[in-house]
Amino acid sequence: MLNSSNLKKIGQQTGKLTKKAVLIGTGTIVGPKEGQGPLKNNFHEIIKDELLGMPSWEQAESELLYRACHHALGNAKIDLQELDYFIAGDLLNQTVSSNLVAKKMQIPYLGLFGACSTMTESLLLSAIIIESGLGNNVMAATSSHNKGLERQFRFPTEYGGQRPPYAQWTVSGAGAGILSNSGTGPQVTYITPGKVNDWGIFDPYDLGSAMAPAAYDTLNAHLKDTGRKVSDYDMIITGDLGVQGTTMLREMCKQDNLEIEAVHHDCGIMVFGSDQDAHAGGSGCACSAVVMYGYIYNLLTSAHINKVLLMATGALHNPQIVQQNVSIPSICHGISIENSMTGGDKIG
Amino acid sequence: MLNSSNLKKIGQQTGKLTKKAVLIGTGTIVGPKEGQGPLKNNFHEIIKDELLGMPSWEQAESELLYRACHHALGNAKIDLQELDYFIAGDLLNQTVSSNLVAKKMQIPYLGLFGACSTMTESLLLSAIIIESGLGNNVMAATSSHNKGLERQFRFPTEYGGQRPPYAQWTVSGAGAGILSNSGTGPQVTYITPGKVNDWGIFDPYDLGSAMAPAAYDTLNAHLKDTGRKVSDYDMIITGDLGVQGTTMLREMCKQDNLEIEAVHHDCGIMVFGSDQDAHAGGSGCACSAVVMYGYIYNLLTSAHINKVLLMATGALHNPQIVQQNVSIPSICHGISIENSMTGGDKIG
Repeated sequence: MLNSSNLKKIGQQTGKLTKKAVLIGTGTIVGPKEGQGPLKNNFHEIIKDELLGMPSWEQAESELLYRACHHALGNAKIDLQELDYFIAGDLLNQTVSSNLVAKKMQIPYLGLFGACSTMTESLLLSAIIIESGLGNNVMAATSSHNKGLERQFRFPTEYGGQRPPYAQWTVSGAGAGILSNSGTGPQVTYITPGKVNDWGIFDPYDLGSAMAPAAYDTLNAHLKDTGRKVSDYDMIITGDLGVQGTTMLREMCKQDNLEIEAVHHDCGIMVFGSDQDAHAGGSGCACSAVVMYGYIYNLLTSAHINKVLLMATGALHNPQIVQQNVSIPSICHGISIENSMTGGDKIG
Repeated sequence: MLNSSNLKKIGQQTGKLTKKAVLIGTGTIVGPKEGQGPLKNNFHEIIKDELLGMPSWEQAESELLYRACHHALGNAKIDLQELDYFIAGDLLNQTVSSNLVAKKMQIPYLGLFGACSTMTESLLLSAIIIESGLGNNVMAATSSHNKGLERQFRFPTEYGGQRPPYAQWTVSGAGAGILSNSGTGPQVTYITPGKVNDWGIFDPYDLGSAMAPAAYDTLNAHLKDTGRKVSDYDMIITGDLGVQGTTMLREMCKQDNLEIEAVHHDCGIMVFGSDQDAHAGGSGCACSAVVMYGYIYNLLTSAHINKVLLMATGALHNPQIVQQNVSIPSICHGISIENSMTGGDKIG
């Protein structure tokens, strides 16, 4: 028992799954701006009214998350009652949109806070539960809402303040995925939970710069722990570094003789077109969630790609500590998802 | 493989651990008011200045959490580098005191939000990681700070507003526990993650009433799933229901012919003396954390008691949704901790 346990933890911070952990279905929903972007054909629902008939932005975000969960259930073709755990988190204070969805779901709920890294944090935890054998089907979900979050973290959008060119646009949307110990679909093979990095960024508009070091750290740890090379992956996908953070990550990799440009993509850059006035790209928990559970999942299930490393990044500040002149800590959780027909490591 | 997996999930929402998951050490720290309470001899550190020399209440809370973690490491006699995961959360917006501690720890970090249920949520997740074999030593930790949280959730304490008699006093303190797949100490045997309950409480001062239904729900699920009786436990411990919530929980149990009074204790009632002007008792993430990782852990390791069911409760609202007239959802996560010499279920 103890030996097999030690075999699963490889290197400093990576875990190797020995059981089947299949992403049997996903669900995504986005707002009108995201629905006009280049990935529009990959989302399960595009809404026209960002309020969704709710009385507040917070409750609208919760409705987005709720609908994404039901799209995932429908696509996975399983019943809500077959889920053993609902694992979710978001950026609102006290992760309130997730809490309100959990109230409707009525299944055991584990709430997370990982800022925009919640997409991979929740999926990584789902994989741990499947590996533990304590659950058969686990749902991982996250959301964000441009209007509610701009108000909470910066200024109400009605204020109309000018945003610097390196600022990103918080995505309105939600994504959910269902991980199961049976069924068919892409499988989670490795998890690399991240450590907190802080390179001394104090500007809450410049989250790409704050998060790039975390992405670099987790990528390095993952490659070192697994013995894999960048070229082993068809795609290495960061969450929401945007133009600023992507430039910084690639520069850091280059200095380390790590050539990632051929396979690296950032959800923040992918989600909006350059004509959409989103400045440095998209951000928010939903940014990586809708791109990964929509576009990337479609690429995997259609076998256009077979091996991806997902690395959602998160900035772990709040407005108070920024005002108190504390620099912005950040994190990045990595997770490998692969089609089992690929020639890579055999899944036990 | 699949069969053993199904054996671990018992009933609707309980998991049965098959591997050794030992609480090898704990650490606690409390503020001056808590340090004058009836449990004062059970804490590892009592501070005199609630600011701890830091420039803000938020940073003071983070320092509390950091010190509790180091007390736990010292008591468990293991090095920080031997920890595979740091699992923590708190009540501050974006769980910022946990994030700042994770930055100092430099080990893989999973951030949680479960409000005051974070004590058992984090320990429950640690047990899942141990059961999965993906980690050998996991630290679970949480904190709260009276001054920072009163300001965030209600009014700055300097305002001096009068509090209703059913209001509770947020505990300043932090607690941490280290769960390991080897070593000696009390062991986690069952986990019962909670579902979200909401009985329509709108008053953010009356969190005992909001949380009591969640405690009742999880207690019922745990007993039904495991086939255990109330009398199988030496103590059944709720987190921070206070006087109001405890009265309500016991009343609900009585109506269900469940006699819990002989073994039920509430950390919120235990942590302050009746002469300490804490109204309905203590609350906050640290309330259950310091009582459980201090007093209860001491009772277990000294074999005064051998079998406890910990049930930390959490109110999952934020000030915005309360102002939007949304009722307060709540949750309770249950976890059984036992000395292995007891005659109960054999641990595999």
